[in-house]
Amino acid sequence: MPNPTAAILVIGDEILSGRTREANAYHLANELTRVGIDLREIRVVPDDHDVIVDALNALRAPHTHVFTSGGIGPTHDDITADAVAAAFGVGIDVREDARELLERALAERGLTPTADQLRMARIPDGARLIVNGRTGAPGFSIGNVHVMAGVPSIFVDMLGTVLPTLDAGAPRLSRELRFEVGEGRIATPLRELAQAMPEVTFGSYPFREGEIRGTNIVVRGTDPTVLDDAVTRLEEIRAATAVRPTGR
Amino acid sequence: MPNPTAAILVIGDEILSGRTREANAYHLANELTRVGIDLREIRVVPDDHDVIVDALNALRAPHTHVFTSGGIGPTHDDITADAVAAAFGVGIDVREDARELLERALAERGLTPTADQLRMARIPDGARLIVNGRTGAPGFSIGNVHVMAGVPSIFVDMLGTVLPTLDAGAPRLSRELRFEVGEGRIATPLRELAQAMPEVTFGSYPFREGEIRGTNIVVRGTDPTVLDDAVTRLEEIRAATAVRPTGR
Repeated sequence: MPNPTAAILVIGDEILSGRTREANAYHLANELTRVGIDLREIRVVPDDHDVIVDALNALRAPHTHVFTSGGIGPTHDDITADAVAAAFGVGIDVREDARELLERALAERGLTPTADQLRMARIPDGARLIVNGRTGAPGFSIGNVHVMAGVPSIFVDMLGTVLPTLDAGAPRLSRELRFEVGEGRIATPLRELAQAMPEVTFGSYPFREGEIRGTNIVVRGTDPTVLDDAVTRLEEIRAATAVRPTGR
Repeated sequence: MPNPTAAILVIGDEILSGRTREANAYHLANELTRVGIDLREIRVVPDDHDVIVDALNALRAPHTHVFTSGGIGPTHDDITADAVAAAFGVGIDVREDARELLERALAERGLTPTADQLRMARIPDGARLIVNGRTGAPGFSIGNVHVMAGVPSIFVDMLGTVLPTLDAGAPRLSRELRFEVGEGRIATPLRELAQAMPEVTFGSYPFREGEIRGTNIVVRGTDPTVLDDAVTRLEEIRAATAVRPTGR
C-alpha cells in the first residue's frame, strides 16, 4: 500500500521578500520521512486571501494531509484562519474553548485579551483545536488540513501534537554512500542499477571538496533487506569505478 | 506600473525527504527584492516528469519569470531539461554550442565527455544558454523560464548571469522597527496605520528574547519618502504603547 502523501503551504510575505529564511518545511520534511508520510510539495505564498484559498484547495484534494505554517497571530496580516474557512466554505467566529485557552495563558501574565488578541480564538466551524505548550493561541485541524503557527518553536510544538494522531505509512529508510568520483563516471552503472531495482529510488548529489569532485548516492525505500542489497551493489560499482592513485 | 512577478520551481526529492535544506529560493528572494521583481511563489516538487511539467505550466502563465533549480546533471534522476521541453512542446537534443562548452571544461582536466555527461548538453529547441564560470554544463532560458543548477554555488553563478538581462521594476525598500511589546498591544494602531497607508505593507513578526516578548514591524514599499513617513508614524505608536518600568 502506498504511503499517505502530504503538502505544506507556507504563508508569509517575509519568506518571499527574503527577510526570513523558511525553517518549518525543513523540519516537517524530516518528521514526515521518519513516520512514513511522503511529503510531495512545499508551496510558499504571500499574505493574500485569494491566493491562499486557491492554494489550499489545490493541495487538499490530491494529498492525504496538508499542513500550513504562518498567519495565525493577532495582527492585520494574519489572515490564514479566514482563508481556511473560505476554502472549506464554513463560518468562522471566536470559539469558547479557544477563548478560554487564550485567557488562561494571558492571565498567567496578569493580562486579559485585547480585541485583536481575541482574533486568535477565531476558529472555523467544525475544526479541532491543536493545543500547544508555548502560547495560549491554538492551531486547528479541519478536514485534512492542519493549521499551525509560523514561529518555528510553536510550529514544532504543534506538529508534535498533531503527528501522533495521523495514520502513518511505512517509514522511508535511506542509506548514503560517498563516491570520490564525479557523477559522470558512475552515471551509466547507476542508471542500470536504478532500472534493475524499481522498488527503491537512487538520488545522485555531486559535491566538491578541495580537489575532490565526488558524488553522494542516496538510496531510499521501505524494505531494509532490499536497501542492504542496493548498498552492496553500490559498493561493487564504487570498487569498479574508483580512481586509483597512479605512480608509487 | 506594478513590478514584474516571479516564481521559483525547486526540483528534488532530496529537499522533500529532508536530506537537504533548500538554499536557492532564499538567495533568489533576496536578489529579486534587490532588483525590484516580486517573488510571488516558491514551489518544491519531486523528481517526477509529469509533476514538473504541470508545475512549470501553472507557474509560467501568470508570472513574468519562472526560475528553476535542480535536476540538470548527468544522472538518471536529472529530468528537468526534458520536462521543460515537454512543457513548451518543443524537441530536445544535444546542441553543438553546449557540447563545446562541456568538452572544453572537461578537457582542462584531461577528460572527454561520457555519454551520460553529454546529456548535460541536451538543450530544448529555441533556448538560450546560461553559461557559468564553475562548470562546463550550461543552464538555459526558454520563453520566460530560466533553468539553473541545484548546486548552490552554481545556482548563484547562473543567477548572476541571468538577472542583469531581465527587465526589473522599482526596488522594494524596507525598514524595520523593534517594539519591545507583544503583537497584541500594538495590533489596533498598526491595523489603523495599515489602512491609512495602503501604498505600503506592514508585516508583524513576534519574537521572544529572554523575558521580552517583542514584535518586529517591517514596512515595505517603493517610495522612500512614503517609507520615512510610515516609520515616523510607527515611532509615534511605539512611544504611545511602550511599557514603562514601574517602581522607583
